[in-house]
Amino acid sequence: MGRAGSGRPTIADVAARAGVSVGAVSAAVNGKGRLSEATRLRVLAAAAELGWAPSAAAVALRGARVGALGLVLRRDPDLLSSDPHFAQLVTGVESALAPLGWGLLLHLVDDGGEERAYRALAAGRRVDGVVLTESRVRDPRFALLRELGLPAALVGTPWRPDPVPTVRARDQHRGITRAVEHLVGLGHRRFGHVSGPEDRVHTRRRRAALRRALGAHGLVPVCVRASGFDPGAAAVAARELLTSAERPTAVLFANDSMAAAGLVTARRLGIDVPGELSVVGHDDLPLCELLHPALTTVRQDLVGLGRAAAVTLLAGLGVVDGAGLEEVRPPELVVRESTGPAPR
Amino acid sequence: MGRAGSGRPTIADVAARAGVSVGAVSAAVNGKGRLSEATRLRVLAAAAELGWAPSAAAVALRGARVGALGLVLRRDPDLLSSDPHFAQLVTGVESALAPLGWGLLLHLVDDGGEERAYRALAAGRRVDGVVLTESRVRDPRFALLRELGLPAALVGTPWRPDPVPTVRARDQHRGITRAVEHLVGLGHRRFGHVSGPEDRVHTRRRRAALRRALGAHGLVPVCVRASGFDPGAAAVAARELLTSAERPTAVLFANDSMAAAGLVTARRLGIDVPGELSVVGHDDLPLCELLHPALTTVRQDLVGLGRAAAVTLLAGLGVVDGAGLEEVRPPELVVRESTGPAPR
Repeated sequence: MGRAGSGRPTIADVAARAGVSVGAVSAAVNGKGRLSEATRLRVLAAAAELGWAPSAAAVALRGARVGALGLVLRRDPDLLSSDPHFAQLVTGVESALAPLGWGLLLHLVDDGGEERAYRALAAGRRVDGVVLTESRVRDPRFALLRELGLPAALVGTPWRPDPVPTVRARDQHRGITRAVEHLVGLGHRRFGHVSGPEDRVHTRRRRAALRRALGAHGLVPVCVRASGFDPGAAAVAARELLTSAERPTAVLFANDSMAAAGLVTARRLGIDVPGELSVVGHDDLPLCELLHPALTTVRQDLVGLGRAAAVTLLAGLGVVDGAGLEEVRPPELVVRESTGPAPR
Repeated sequence: MGRAGSGRPTIADVAARAGVSVGAVSAAVNGKGRLSEATRLRVLAAAAELGWAPSAAAVALRGARVGALGLVLRRDPDLLSSDPHFAQLVTGVESALAPLGWGLLLHLVDDGGEERAYRALAAGRRVDGVVLTESRVRDPRFALLRELGLPAALVGTPWRPDPVPTVRARDQHRGITRAVEHLVGLGHRRFGHVSGPEDRVHTRRRRAALRRALGAHGLVPVCVRASGFDPGAAAVAARELLTSAERPTAVLFANDSMAAAGLVTARRLGIDVPGELSVVGHDDLPLCELLHPALTTVRQDLVGLGRAAAVTLLAGLGVVDGAGLEEVRPPELVVRESTGPAPR
């Protein structure tokens, strides 16, 4: 590996050794340009002698793969660590990339920085494609990525039909339906829901799924609150629900850490879970088993979704054979200790 | 931005328009090569007409910054999502990178893939430097990175003095000392410790810090178990401690999710926390406040550590002024509900 002493060889070293310009080395390696075969061979010989190999940068210049996917997350960096999805999704993406030696280029941006980040990724050819998450209502990313010619795959449901490939579980609202059946079977009739933010596609779709599932039993939710994904906001929403005139006996939360905040809120209000209140989370993060009572939740295959998004992109790029893409597991209800018979 | 229709312009388009080779365009943009000034200007004019700008790849070729740091994590992708440090550390790194428009290139590798990943990052010039975490006993990364000429900054303490810049809190074992003082003040005399894996530098250093802190009160730990960082392994270690002949009345865990698993284990064994057992975590993840009882823990500024590592690297690269590097907050004890008077 390299020459002793002064670090790795550069294209300039190769050019000097071969007695040509840097541009000629680039041309020789790329097999383009207008070099004589003799010059081309002299350059390649110099490169071999010095142990120089064209870098990913050079490879990118001639249109091959960079070996990285991008993930641009639009949020305050401080909120990342409380994001329940992030680590699981990255885990899934990495499980597809790691065997290929590919990496995941992560960019955190604020609202204004999102478009700039995608333009920089495309113009700089820093990634071969991007994974999109958190599908938004009137999502501007699809048009932008088409303009940039940057391949993408979306985890979730686009706000309207779009040519960007999407990955999601088959029968993706089955978990919510099962949760409602479980709770109705336990005698619950007054349901509350603490949903995610209004601008997320899944907030609206899950709320609709909940209404459909309740409607099948002749029920409607007694109270619904939209909330940010962080436990603090969820605690505020939970307190509103649990101190309202028509207090629900069962509350479904948009994710597990919001449900965990709901458990804390109930405890502070002196409301016993599951004796007086049943609580259901969403996602089934490792957290659920560590809570007391352990959290009943709708398991979502977040790792599988991240993996499927990466494999879909890689298959589209011709890097892997997409035929082997395993299906994302459909959501299922995991019953633990936070749900019980409705109070009389 | 670009021509209508067929995506962004390429270096080949510029070469064709200027009537030169691709290599000549590269040479013109890099200001190297042996082009006449006339040719150089013709190339730059063509580039401007087409809206083509040299990509990050091209910039990297001529030695400027790529605009990315690397983070190579050596672990099973499946374990990432249960890693308590990962999201916090990435949050800190991103908080330094985001304002610059820089990204973080993440690579998950197995044991054998680590060296290969670093070599690929260096050879491909994919990053400007790497953040190292999880300092290991006989860590092979320092020598490797020196050989590769890849700048690095380590979060934590190196296993032996090393020229790689390191970031850590001042007075980094103060939190453990405070935890021991708190528990001794509550009457505890029988201490247990569930540490991290043996090959981590901090496992050994924290164990030594605990022994020193106990020694100051004429005490020694009654039982110590090494454990993997995942809750399952921690639960096994906790069960061993809590069913041993000389059961401790206070147990310190290496991180918060391990301590959460300890709470679950105690509950299953019918041991009341904090009535019969005090439990202390480490890190102060958001999880702590969601547990019941809420977890007393040693707060570590993981976000600050990640940020400091990134800023140190960026300052070393001359990208930011390191003089403004704020200090990492020293560890402190956060007392919640999981610690109480020793049982009589």
